[in-house]
Parts: sequence; C-alpha cells; structure tokens
Amino acid sequence: MIKEDLQKQIEFIKEIDKIKYIRRRTKLFNSDRNENDAEHSWHLALMAMVLSEYADEKIDLCKVIKMVLIHDIVEIDAGDTFIYDENKNHENTAEELKSAKRIFGILPEKQAAEFIELWTEFEDGISNEAKFARSMDRLEPLLQNTSNNGGTWKEFGVKYETVYEKKKAIRNGSKELWEFAENLLSDSVKKGILTK
Amino acid sequence: MIKEDLQKQIEFIKEIDKIKYIRRRTKLFNSDRNENDAEHSWHLALMAMVLSEYADEKIDLCKVIKMVLIHDIVEIDAGDTFIYDENKNHENTAEELKSAKRIFGILPEKQAAEFIELWTEFEDGISNEAKFARSMDRLEPLLQNTSNNGGTWKEFGVKYETVYEKKKAIRNGSKELWEFAENLLSDSVKKGILTK
Repeated sequence: MIKEDLQKQIEFIKEIDKIKYIRRRTKLFNSDRNENDAEHSWHLALMAMVLSEYADEKIDLCKVIKMVLIHDIVEIDAGDTFIYDENKNHENTAEELKSAKRIFGILPEKQAAEFIELWTEFEDGISNEAKFARSMDRLEPLLQNTSNNGGTWKEFGVKYETVYEKKKAIRNGSKELWEFAENLLSDSVKKGILTK
Repeated sequence: MIKEDLQKQIEFIKEIDKIKYIRRRTKLFNSDRNENDAEHSWHLALMAMVLSEYADEKIDLCKVIKMVLIHDIVEIDAGDTFIYDENKNHENTAEELKSAKRIFGILPEKQAAEFIELWTEFEDGISNEAKFARSMDRLEPLLQNTSNNGGTWKEFGVKYETVYEKKKAIRNGSKELWEFAENLLSDSVKKGILTK
C-alpha cells in the first residue's frame, strides 16, 4: 500500500512534466529553437547560484532557487504571456492563481500551502528573495537576446524604451547587475540589434 | 567596465545553455520526445523539494537541490551515457572530470572550486545528500518508463533483473521510496511492460 501522501506527490511530479511543453518566446543562446519553461527555470536557478553575491540585500539563496524553480508551473494551465504583449497583463492574474491552486493543490495539504505561499511571494515581488529572483527572470532573456542578434526584440519590433522599462526590475534585486544590464542595452543600440 | 569576475560568471551562464541540447534516452511522461538534460535536472530538483521527507538520514535539502541542478553539466563535453550501456561505464570517468574542470573552471577560481567539489560529492555518492540526490536520479526515469508503457526498457530490450540492479541505488537514499520503486517494478512485470 502506497501512503496517500506519497501517491499525491508522485501525481504532482508527473503533472509538472507538462511544463516542458510550454514554449517561451525567447530562443536558446545561439539557436533559433524556442526555450521551454523547464529549461528556463533550470537556467534561472543556476544564475541565482552563480550571481547571488550581487544581491543588494541579504538573501536566503535556497529560497530564491526554489522560487525560480516553481515560478512558471502555473503556466501549465495559464500559458506563457509574452512580456511585451500589449493586450495581456503579464502580472499575477486570476487565471494564474487558479492554476496555482489546482496544480500545487495536487500535493498533500501542508505542502500545497507551502508551494502556493512561495509562488505568491515571488509574484508579489516584495521580499528580498523575490526581488532577486525576479532580477534573474529579467536578466536571462536579456543575455539571450544579446547573444541572438536581437532575438525577440527584432522579431517583434520591440523598442529600446520598452525593453528598458521592463528590465528596470533588475535594479530592485541588484544595482550592480542593473548597471551591467544597462550597459548591455546601450551596446545593443550601438550594434543596431535594438532600436530607439 | 565589467568586473572580471562578473564577466566570467556571465560566460559560464552562456556556456551551460548547451545542456539544453544534450538528449537523454528517456522520454518525457506520456510523450515520445526525448528529455534533455536541463529538463531532467529541473525535474530532479522539484522531486527533491517534494520528496525530501522520505530521506532516511538528515539532509541539507538546499545542497541536494544544487547537486542535481549541476550534476549533468559535465555532459556538455562528455555526452550522455545510457545507464544500460554495456560497453561504456556510466560512473565518474576521466572524461567527465576533464569536462568538470573545463566548464566549472570558467567561473572565478573560488566559485569554480565550490562547484567541482559539489559535483564530485554527488559522483562519489557517499554523503547523505549525494545518496538522496542519486535516488532522485534513479527514480525519475522509473516514473517515466512506467508512464510510457515501458519506454526505454522496451525500446532497448532491458530486462527486469538489470533494471532492478540499477534502481537499487534508490535504497541508499530512502527505504520508503525504494519500497515504492520495488512495487512499481513488480507491477511493470505483471503489466508486461518489463520482462524477466
């Protein structure tokens, strides 16, 4: 007899496999293949491990890693919203909350509550950990687009000012990484892969 | 001017993107698409988060998560070795160590040493964290093959005894998960998706 809790946990582990089919707009580095949400989440976790020293405030790195690993699981139901989509709000929507409750709700009750709380903390973007996690989430596509000759900026005609506005969230987690990002954006304009 | 350390870290972040092109033999749950190493590593990290309560010994969960996130980065140079390959040893090879030194060696010196140490600890499989991390690594494909009507077992004609022998490593991390795994294997024989 499998314990009921373990059964629920195994069901959750199988359910979240679906994140591997959620395609983002951004492409892999030096490739024209779209990245999926599992790959993206893995990369953010590695970035957090490597870049944690640049966080402005004291952070619990383990919590940041967990946050970025689970932050996109809601997209299994809610889908990926392109950050530059003008018609749909990228921020915490009722649809995403419903998805969080359904998917994390597969887990045993206490664990489900912990995952939902962690996901909500990331979405709120107020705690030190959430701020740094969100910096990682903004920085990865910036590295991808600059490695990909403009990537989604070119593909969807996104202008410098719009990108700059979205990327400013990096500053909330790390002034040093924001300075690096600002330079990357200016360089991109000079190189002609991002237009003003 | 970008600080030298940050430059190295960004180079590493770009380099490890290549893990997304390393295809494993196992397939996604309910699909015939091969899983790649980034997706696999992400899934193991989530499994560790969800199943940590079953570890037989006290573990530092954060360390386990970091281990599974980085354990396959060496495959960027060394490639994926199929666990049931009879001609090539799956265990820590000179080739993998060389790869670890090159790839983690892109990072600033102190950080590179930390990553190599963590990877070596996983490979050695002696610490409580390494044992539990390795349990996750054995459990994921078992869940995939049983969800995929036999998956790689059927595809490559792997027998029950061989699978059982490899899966026994799960017991080193968790007796309860091993009991669950043993039942899954017996059920697979009954269902005819694994042959004796």
